[in-house]
Amino acid sequence: MNRLASTALGTTPADLVIHNANIANVYTGVYEPADIAVTSGIIAGIGTDYHGTTEYDAQGRALIPGMIDGHAHIESTMMTPPEFARITALHGTSSVMADPHEIANSLGMTGLRYMFSVSQNLPINIYYGAPSCVPASDYETPFEPLDMNAIASMFRQGMTTHLGEMMNYPAVISGDPDAWGKILAAGNVPLTGHAPGVSGKALNAYISSGVNSDHEATTLTEAREKLSRGMWLMIREGASFPDLRNLLPVITENPLNSARTMVVSDDLTARYLLERGHMDEKMRIMIQEGINPFTALRMVTLSPAEYFRLYHHGGIAPGNVADFALLDSNILDESFTVREVWHNGLLVAKDGDVFYSHENATPAPIAYTHIKNIPTVEDIRINAEIVNVIGLTPGSIITQTLQTSPEAPDTAKIVVLQRHHDTGQFGIGYIHGLGIKSGAIGSSVAHDAHNFVVAGMDDMSIITALHGLADMGGGLVVAHGENITAKFALPVGGLMSTLPAEDIARSLADMETAANVSIEHPFMALSFLCLSVVPELRITDKGYCDIMKGIIPLVVR
Amino acid sequence: MNRLASTALGTTPADLVIHNANIANVYTGVYEPADIAVTSGIIAGIGTDYHGTTEYDAQGRALIPGMIDGHAHIESTMMTPPEFARITALHGTSSVMADPHEIANSLGMTGLRYMFSVSQNLPINIYYGAPSCVPASDYETPFEPLDMNAIASMFRQGMTTHLGEMMNYPAVISGDPDAWGKILAAGNVPLTGHAPGVSGKALNAYISSGVNSDHEATTLTEAREKLSRGMWLMIREGASFPDLRNLLPVITENPLNSARTMVVSDDLTARYLLERGHMDEKMRIMIQEGINPFTALRMVTLSPAEYFRLYHHGGIAPGNVADFALLDSNILDESFTVREVWHNGLLVAKDGDVFYSHENATPAPIAYTHIKNIPTVEDIRINAEIVNVIGLTPGSIITQTLQTSPEAPDTAKIVVLQRHHDTGQFGIGYIHGLGIKSGAIGSSVAHDAHNFVVAGMDDMSIITALHGLADMGGGLVVAHGENITAKFALPVGGLMSTLPAEDIARSLADMETAANVSIEHPFMALSFLCLSVVPELRITDKGYCDIMKGIIPLVVR
Repeated sequence: MNRLASTALGTTPADLVIHNANIANVYTGVYEPADIAVTSGIIAGIGTDYHGTTEYDAQGRALIPGMIDGHAHIESTMMTPPEFARITALHGTSSVMADPHEIANSLGMTGLRYMFSVSQNLPINIYYGAPSCVPASDYETPFEPLDMNAIASMFRQGMTTHLGEMMNYPAVISGDPDAWGKILAAGNVPLTGHAPGVSGKALNAYISSGVNSDHEATTLTEAREKLSRGMWLMIREGASFPDLRNLLPVITENPLNSARTMVVSDDLTARYLLERGHMDEKMRIMIQEGINPFTALRMVTLSPAEYFRLYHHGGIAPGNVADFALLDSNILDESFTVREVWHNGLLVAKDGDVFYSHENATPAPIAYTHIKNIPTVEDIRINAEIVNVIGLTPGSIITQTLQTSPEAPDTAKIVVLQRHHDTGQFGIGYIHGLGIKSGAIGSSVAHDAHNFVVAGMDDMSIITALHGLADMGGGLVVAHGENITAKFALPVGGLMSTLPAEDIARSLADMETAANVSIEHPFMALSFLCLSVVPELRITDKGYCDIMKGIIPLVVR
Repeated sequence: MNRLASTALGTTPADLVIHNANIANVYTGVYEPADIAVTSGIIAGIGTDYHGTTEYDAQGRALIPGMIDGHAHIESTMMTPPEFARITALHGTSSVMADPHEIANSLGMTGLRYMFSVSQNLPINIYYGAPSCVPASDYETPFEPLDMNAIASMFRQGMTTHLGEMMNYPAVISGDPDAWGKILAAGNVPLTGHAPGVSGKALNAYISSGVNSDHEATTLTEAREKLSRGMWLMIREGASFPDLRNLLPVITENPLNSARTMVVSDDLTARYLLERGHMDEKMRIMIQEGINPFTALRMVTLSPAEYFRLYHHGGIAPGNVADFALLDSNILDESFTVREVWHNGLLVAKDGDVFYSHENATPAPIAYTHIKNIPTVEDIRINAEIVNVIGLTPGSIITQTLQTSPEAPDTAKIVVLQRHHDTGQFGIGYIHGLGIKSGAIGSSVAHDAHNFVVAGMDDMSIITALHGLADMGGGLVVAHGENITAKFALPVGGLMSTLPAEDIARSLADMETAANVSIEHPFMALSFLCLSVVPELRITDKGYCDIMKGIIPLVVR
């Protein structure tokens, strides 16, 4: 006897029945008071008079499909995938489309295999994109470049389900064979994009490659144009880029746009997840902003499922995977609080507790090149009257190119040390606007190649910080003279901690306090200084570069 | 240099530029006056100032994506696929999802290979579903049964892209291993359904199998329930079943439903296509009924493309296949008349003419078992006082079971002869309500097994008709005594003619006149008498059957 069919018919008891749920039917946009019968992790039936081995009374509360984040970088939270899964499951997330390009820069294919392996058997599904831009540019030195053959290899190994954000949009637009080769190597999968401000014929060229989604639109005009060119729109609401409220009119003006729009998080922090939540927060924002709650729900469930070809996710329907959550409330309202969560038919979260197999819960640190070739104080001494200086722009990751004395106020020396192969290669520059008063701060989180980056007011503190980073195998550090005065280890690829989210959030806050600088998030500011693909002046282990102008010298005179 | 990107950028001339088009943007529901640049059959750019080898002035007329029929049986038109393509291309169709279950019944895998091979290089794309129900039931004798291994084989051979309509819904609902095996053999493809009136727990069981679309809903309640259970809704507007106007309120009440709804034709005739059109007719109906024209257009373009995973069809966007059409009018209005059609970037139809390679245009008849074992007048003589009689129901394919004298008014004898393997097996019955006055009419179109079916007022005419069918290798025939008084050959599997559509329509009309019966479409009525899966009384080469009751005897007393 076919158990799924007979459970649907009600002739075989289900494994699980949720009674008295007020199902938020994302297919038709109506509430449907009903029971849900589940067998072998699959929804068999929706209706009345179902019975099962386990029965759960929903008490008339609203039941939603498990929510899907269509674009996230788990590494940004400094949490390992199991910990990320634990926290997001609590908030009703069932699936995350993760682009692991940070670990791909810092540990190459080994890092990707690590992420994939620790992402199994968790209370959410983590589907990985193949990182399409490692390195981000030729100015950067990643652990290993991932070319079109590496992309093909990831798919052949079954590690990836889609192409990660194709950030090198200039290369795609110009028809660069390597960029197009990576896209073609991914084959017939969702090809996710990243094309900030790209418009008109350049956008045509970008999309003609097959890349068919984008999460970088920040204006309504940009969002509309991308939708009109057949792209699926990802509206980002992340820690640094809250675009949701700005872009919701694209849904209000034509609710049908929600069928090809999803809401994504991109970059989040542990603190953000703990204090504000995950996709549930985005639901609260949308409902507060007056979006029809079912339309909102579609954009975090069915629409991402359709785009990512998760044919058996995204809605409560027979044959679908039993991923759903119960809210506190009987309807979808501004409170939108998740209380119980089922994943593959199992209760995985309830009232703030997560239940699941913990075999992957605390992954070990992974193999890491121990850095011995660290420059000395003499190596980084600079004698110059006027130097090029990276000028920070408050509230933006765009930088300016300044020319000042190295002794000018609020000007720190910055050193980037190649950390992947212990070559000893390093670049030196200066930064203005970090607000560092004394000593040095350092990090192994340094987009995208994630070398060691240290900024400091004296050379001894800088060298001490570099040694501190090397000793920890990566992390965050504060040094004064010959002493490490604060540190936070990120032993997983120099990017992630094995600690719980709460400890990560607290440690990061403690480090920010210890840094004693005038800007709010100094380590995040530091992490973007090496991102060579963003204008203007950047620094890598090869020295200064400017994506528009090329190599830039340190010394002006 | 990448030609697609450089064409998009406007730095390389396009193969084709359509100037001054008023693009009906199905992604955003707005008109967009622009040029379209095409290279290598792919849309490269949308915008202004494109130039190309061929330039075409659209004069501001509306440009639509090529239209897609999500469910059609080409055999029903009696046209071969090339002829079907010729006629539908004229009406702006670019793709048809065809379920070849008629030829599959009459010629098995050989018939499927034939359909696939003559469907290449046509002015439309024909994508085939794997016929899931051959035979329709155990009461019927097809050329060969197609089991789950045959389904797997079709996909392995690349002949099919989706599972054809799973008509055996009772088997699916009851968990029958063969039916489920066919569904699972199809794998991760769109699994199309057929579940008339199925509701509640039975519908849950049906959908739990993975079948996720249906074209049999005839009421709003049924349509809403199927959508709410995650099915994609196919609204049928065919020759015999015009459901479109009835079901459009499901779109009006929630336009978002259009994202998972398509309009399909199912069964059409040559005359219907010639006189009323194809998907363009459905657009006219929807616009007349007050549906937003862009919402209507979505249901014949983007929605079927999304359901059938035609990722590069369904809209005018860079990277998509250049399938589009120009209307007579500048907007989408009730006139909705297609004037020019491009397929894969080539002009294939204009003002009623079709241009394309004709190498497949007139396929030859295909191998056919010549029938020698034909019963004699003596073999079909019946001596009985009261017999069971199939009672035709005007306007419905449902029949009744009557008990009358064989000599009662308007009662004809009916004979079904197994035609696939020349076994000589035949079934005898009676039919009331055909309105035949004298002689006999016969057909090799006899759903679903397509054996020879003949109904007549005297035994000699019946036997003459059977010989006439055998001599032609299938077709339609009218006989009086020992003479064939009219005939129309269908040499392609006994189902299709190699003649042009216009000749088919005329011949069928001539045959209907020659039949000289009181009902409108006697050959169509005849063709449904053998469809064992529809209640009540039916006749096959095995004799009478009733899907609800089993084998039924001929003689009552």
